[in-house]
Amino acid sequence: MKSKKAIGKQTIGFGLRPVIIASASVVGPDEGKGPLAEYFDLIIKDKLYGEETWEKAESKFLKEVFNATMAKAKLAEDDLDLILSGDLLNQSIAATFGLRGADVPFLGLFGACSTICESMCIGGMLISGEMVNHVACITSSHFCSAERQFRTPLELGTQRVPSAQWTVTGGGGIMLGNQGQGPEIDCVTIGKICDYGVKDPANMGAAMAPAAAETISQHFKDTGRSYDYYDMVLTGDLGYVGRELCNELLEKVDIKLGERYNDCGILIFDVQGQDMHSGGSGCGCAASVFSGMIMDHFNKGKVQNILLVGTGALFSPTSAMQGESIPAIAHAVSITTKYSC
Amino acid sequence: MKSKKAIGKQTIGFGLRPVIIASASVVGPDEGKGPLAEYFDLIIKDKLYGEETWEKAESKFLKEVFNATMAKAKLAEDDLDLILSGDLLNQSIAATFGLRGADVPFLGLFGACSTICESMCIGGMLISGEMVNHVACITSSHFCSAERQFRTPLELGTQRVPSAQWTVTGGGGIMLGNQGQGPEIDCVTIGKICDYGVKDPANMGAAMAPAAAETISQHFKDTGRSYDYYDMVLTGDLGYVGRELCNELLEKVDIKLGERYNDCGILIFDVQGQDMHSGGSGCGCAASVFSGMIMDHFNKGKVQNILLVGTGALFSPTSAMQGESIPAIAHAVSITTKYSC
Repeated sequence: MKSKKAIGKQTIGFGLRPVIIASASVVGPDEGKGPLAEYFDLIIKDKLYGEETWEKAESKFLKEVFNATMAKAKLAEDDLDLILSGDLLNQSIAATFGLRGADVPFLGLFGACSTICESMCIGGMLISGEMVNHVACITSSHFCSAERQFRTPLELGTQRVPSAQWTVTGGGGIMLGNQGQGPEIDCVTIGKICDYGVKDPANMGAAMAPAAAETISQHFKDTGRSYDYYDMVLTGDLGYVGRELCNELLEKVDIKLGERYNDCGILIFDVQGQDMHSGGSGCGCAASVFSGMIMDHFNKGKVQNILLVGTGALFSPTSAMQGESIPAIAHAVSITTKYSC
Repeated sequence: MKSKKAIGKQTIGFGLRPVIIASASVVGPDEGKGPLAEYFDLIIKDKLYGEETWEKAESKFLKEVFNATMAKAKLAEDDLDLILSGDLLNQSIAATFGLRGADVPFLGLFGACSTICESMCIGGMLISGEMVNHVACITSSHFCSAERQFRTPLELGTQRVPSAQWTVTGGGGIMLGNQGQGPEIDCVTIGKICDYGVKDPANMGAAMAPAAAETISQHFKDTGRSYDYYDMVLTGDLGYVGRELCNELLEKVDIKLGERYNDCGILIFDVQGQDMHSGGSGCGCAASVFSGMIMDHFNKGKVQNILLVGTGALFSPTSAMQGESIPAIAHAVSITTKYSC
């Protein structure tokens, strides 16, 4: 079987297609009250999840995501070649502490909220290139640990602006295999860092929208696919503000996705009813929406082709305080159940 | 050409071997006064490197590393398929800000001081699996930006304990290609997270030594190589304290490397003369020592087989303040100029 079909500068097509043989998701109480509740494997009721700190809680549910993904894939640790994992916390401690007990080779990634797609890109390429047979892609985020790290301590009760996004408390796991039953990754488009000069950490949708638009546009250019090829083009977490900007940028290059375009940060909450401002964000957002709702739709035959576009804001509080703008990145993963195409 | 030879649970052998077609290094003033000065491409005289902050200085010299690696590889950005990069700073801002101007697909990694080896593992597998043709592996660290982030503001002049290591100000770049002239990567051993319960952030050598010993031991088990196969087994940056502990752990499983075993954190400084306590550390340590001295030794035929073992401490100040121990990881890359073996 041919292992590669290069189909453009940023897009790598797979002859041997990695299969998503299982997925799992764990979310927090707010996400469990949202419209996607039925799709999640576990809804935790307490943001501390029985731990003393939010960071430890995040590590704990990231581990639950890993365990659930392994169980649903019916794999033992000996059968797993590699874990690819990352999160938003400094030095990715949710992942490294959550997974330190796993007896499996581990590679840490940092792509901010794009990490689930970054892990699917790398894992997909390693499987398609016949380097490994099974890869677990695991990411998480936690509203409370992210908020105090990136913005202000929660105890201050700082008011949020309408463009602000709400970091999802939750995580998702995707098990990729070189064979098995499930949707397949047929190609990935790896993003470039993109900086349009946005400096407002309370408007990350605006910072990330250009990266999403560039990667989506490059993906259609590289593949030559028509804009109605996908049942859904789903950005990671741009929220309402970012989705509108991304749509504007796409329309400037004559890409009209219309109703086919949606965003995980908008889907995961009843944004108005739950007062989530611009919508959800965080490594756990796209990961749990894809692992939960989208995988369910694939399994029930409701969708056949999905383009998942993880978006990440690559800044830190230090860079923001030093007056820097917010560079962003987006990686796209094309997933299909049209096995014959 | 066969793209894979699996040679053990954690070790992946390459049929199509990635070639190190170029490397470059940039270091700061202390490293420039050390014993390896002659091997570095650029020694900067001022730790701020003309910038207003240490973080901006680090981004600036990481970019210089990238530019120098590209120039020495005689590659244009259009010929480069992928950048793999990371550093020690929160949210990897040295890498993302340093490389935001590069018009090249980018994937961010976090493996603390093991990042250069992590990038060579991933880049090597992607090339060997024929997914990409050219990958730039770029990492950096900066004493001042790391010290204030992980320990105390430099202005406090806090006294350092003898087991403390000195974060290297510098970076290294390695260009991997699917063909060309240079040493080749013939296999990689990907590490597992390893936590022996060490809690002292001023003794990272002790925290990382078990991970190094486990990966080295697994590498010899997987490959069946004799302990004198390598001219040098070179750990990333354990320093004196960690090297001694690693040697002890290896001797317990009857691996005696003797003079063949050395450490980048010991090589980069005249540790006693420069008062560097246990030795150097940081993402830039193994990266600059390998890119500089080791690549020079390969090119001059002084060495033929090297095992580079990048070691990383996967903790954060938050995890340390919450009373956690320090998990660590080590990834090994086997590099050879014995093309026929």
